[in-house]
Amino acid sequence: MKQLYTKIHKDSTSNARLGTVTLDHGVVNTPAFMPVGTNGTVKGIYHERVKKIGYNLILGNTYHLYLRPGVEVLDSFGGLHNFSNWKGNILTDSGGFQVFSLSNLRKIKEGGVHFKSHIDGSKHVFTPKKVIDIQKSIGSDICMVLDVCTPPGIPYNAAKEAMNTTHAWAKQAKEYGDQLEGFKGNMFGIVQGNFYKDLRKESAEYISSLDFPGIAIGGLSVGEEKSVFYDFLAHTTEFVDDTKPRYVMGIGSPDYILAAVENGIDLFDCVLATRMARNGAVFTDDGVITLKKAIHKFDHSPLQEGCQCTACQKYSRAYMHHMVKTGEMLGGMMATEHNLTYLYNFMEKIRNAIKEDRFTQFKKDYLERFYSKGN
Amino acid sequence: MKQLYTKIHKDSTSNARLGTVTLDHGVVNTPAFMPVGTNGTVKGIYHERVKKIGYNLILGNTYHLYLRPGVEVLDSFGGLHNFSNWKGNILTDSGGFQVFSLSNLRKIKEGGVHFKSHIDGSKHVFTPKKVIDIQKSIGSDICMVLDVCTPPGIPYNAAKEAMNTTHAWAKQAKEYGDQLEGFKGNMFGIVQGNFYKDLRKESAEYISSLDFPGIAIGGLSVGEEKSVFYDFLAHTTEFVDDTKPRYVMGIGSPDYILAAVENGIDLFDCVLATRMARNGAVFTDDGVITLKKAIHKFDHSPLQEGCQCTACQKYSRAYMHHMVKTGEMLGGMMATEHNLTYLYNFMEKIRNAIKEDRFTQFKKDYLERFYSKGN
Repeated sequence: MKQLYTKIHKDSTSNARLGTVTLDHGVVNTPAFMPVGTNGTVKGIYHERVKKIGYNLILGNTYHLYLRPGVEVLDSFGGLHNFSNWKGNILTDSGGFQVFSLSNLRKIKEGGVHFKSHIDGSKHVFTPKKVIDIQKSIGSDICMVLDVCTPPGIPYNAAKEAMNTTHAWAKQAKEYGDQLEGFKGNMFGIVQGNFYKDLRKESAEYISSLDFPGIAIGGLSVGEEKSVFYDFLAHTTEFVDDTKPRYVMGIGSPDYILAAVENGIDLFDCVLATRMARNGAVFTDDGVITLKKAIHKFDHSPLQEGCQCTACQKYSRAYMHHMVKTGEMLGGMMATEHNLTYLYNFMEKIRNAIKEDRFTQFKKDYLERFYSKGN
Repeated sequence: MKQLYTKIHKDSTSNARLGTVTLDHGVVNTPAFMPVGTNGTVKGIYHERVKKIGYNLILGNTYHLYLRPGVEVLDSFGGLHNFSNWKGNILTDSGGFQVFSLSNLRKIKEGGVHFKSHIDGSKHVFTPKKVIDIQKSIGSDICMVLDVCTPPGIPYNAAKEAMNTTHAWAKQAKEYGDQLEGFKGNMFGIVQGNFYKDLRKESAEYISSLDFPGIAIGGLSVGEEKSVFYDFLAHTTEFVDDTKPRYVMGIGSPDYILAAVENGIDLFDCVLATRMARNGAVFTDDGVITLKKAIHKFDHSPLQEGCQCTACQKYSRAYMHHMVKTGEMLGGMMATEHNLTYLYNFMEKIRNAIKEDRFTQFKKDYLERFYSKGN
């Protein structure tokens, strides 16, 4: 098994760690945020611009790509890198979470999960092997095993059953991948266990024992309270093999990112930055700005001093306000570029803070300012 | 009065002419197509990319910009060039056509036109002087006088009355502009006359007599039959001063552009290219392609061989099909870039054909191929 993760430095004030994840399409500096490109495009932005910001690892959704354009199209292009002209790395999820959150029907049987497409209601089955085959067609640099995601509040026995199925599937997927000809993806196992501490520990230890090249923590940020998220993130990470890259799924706001980093997480993804942007909301050091508000109408200042994105380099808040008020595409396009640039810079600052053993202070200062205006 | 137009060459096979229009933000090679940037943005594309394609003259809509962001905002930025970070030239219409086509109520009185905003129903008045003031605030390189646009099929007397009002307003606007301090816009008169040949002749001659630096032909392409458009375009242009740049409003499909050029028109604008793009339809030499059609699903070829746009250089028809099917913004963004690139290249070919005295043959060959597949 390849060793993907190299630790460069551990922050002396927290569990935050600086490192790299070495993949076929370039080395990723961690902790890293991954923009989400569900359908083979990060919404509202050209791939060349995503790369120019500095990102070299983005996420694709197996569930979506399987339904459209479909495996046959991807195969005919030799994978998603070619099809979508993305030169960096691609991580794909297993589809387990989308089946849980999007599809009209989900029936988990021993062999796999039966579901209906959210697009046309057609029936499909995902098995641990099938989602690896799909991700092989996608050509993912990092792929995920099929898991069973569960909402907060379910009984212990149901959580345990879902975890056990997740474990059985993880083992099947690992064995299948190990002997699958031409398969180059680095497979990550996924820790589940709902919101039960003993299950989380058991799952973290079991998934760690399967010798995956990386480990994801699933089933968090699914609607639970923030304090519960923090608690279970810290508790789970403690038992996850720390020689591997560690990935928490669905984390994208500064407070959650800082919490993840603090606990030694290396990778995270979220649609928040790009979705917010399309709704006219942008990140700044002083909190989130809602561009449609009249307060911006005459404001000549940029969204964020020092940001290198097009909106900040060439436009005012007043122009961005005008774009959002008139419903112009350029508003969403520039806000997307801004939010992704902002998060990239944010991660750079985090990496520097870790390097200089001042992550805890950085986190405190950052959040104090971010929330100071009541955002 | 500044001489804006320089004739370089007249095609020996038609009335097509090659020339330049010299403006404060650069020299425009004509005949030229102008992309439409209604609200201070060409929909779905960054200004820097519009410029990179080669365009240095775009259109803004006075009616829209007056309503949003409003004159006060534009004044605070010293005009639309600064506000929208567009380094090229800007032509603005007078708002007369938008009041005609968009607003909920239009009452033409001697002094001006009363209308209700299509956004919030608020009441407004445009007068010949006021629309010049607004265009001064916009900082237009070319501005239009207020006119009265009429639909096909109205009685002779109504057409004549609208024309007479248009003429009176043109004279007022010209006199106002001539003494308006700090006003640098080049004001174009607008020919009206509906679909009555004697009125068209009278209007063309009258507007030509007022010594505007350029002349627009309005009231065409407003719902009339194609043959009627061709007929009236040729008939009207005949009487328009040929030492000035000549502009036909609302022309953007290859057949209409070729007809306009053939008659010696230098400038035209239309939302067609960008609107089509957002609906997943793109120009090719073999006609318009509807990207959502299943025929493109596995097609590895570019939209148009030889095109320099991002879609054609880096993506397949299959990817563009996928973007349109999944409703991704990037589909509209890339199709917009493509259509504008396509039309820019098309105009380059037209200019070369004029230079080499083969415009008539070029037109014939182009249209034959464009319509050969039944588009």
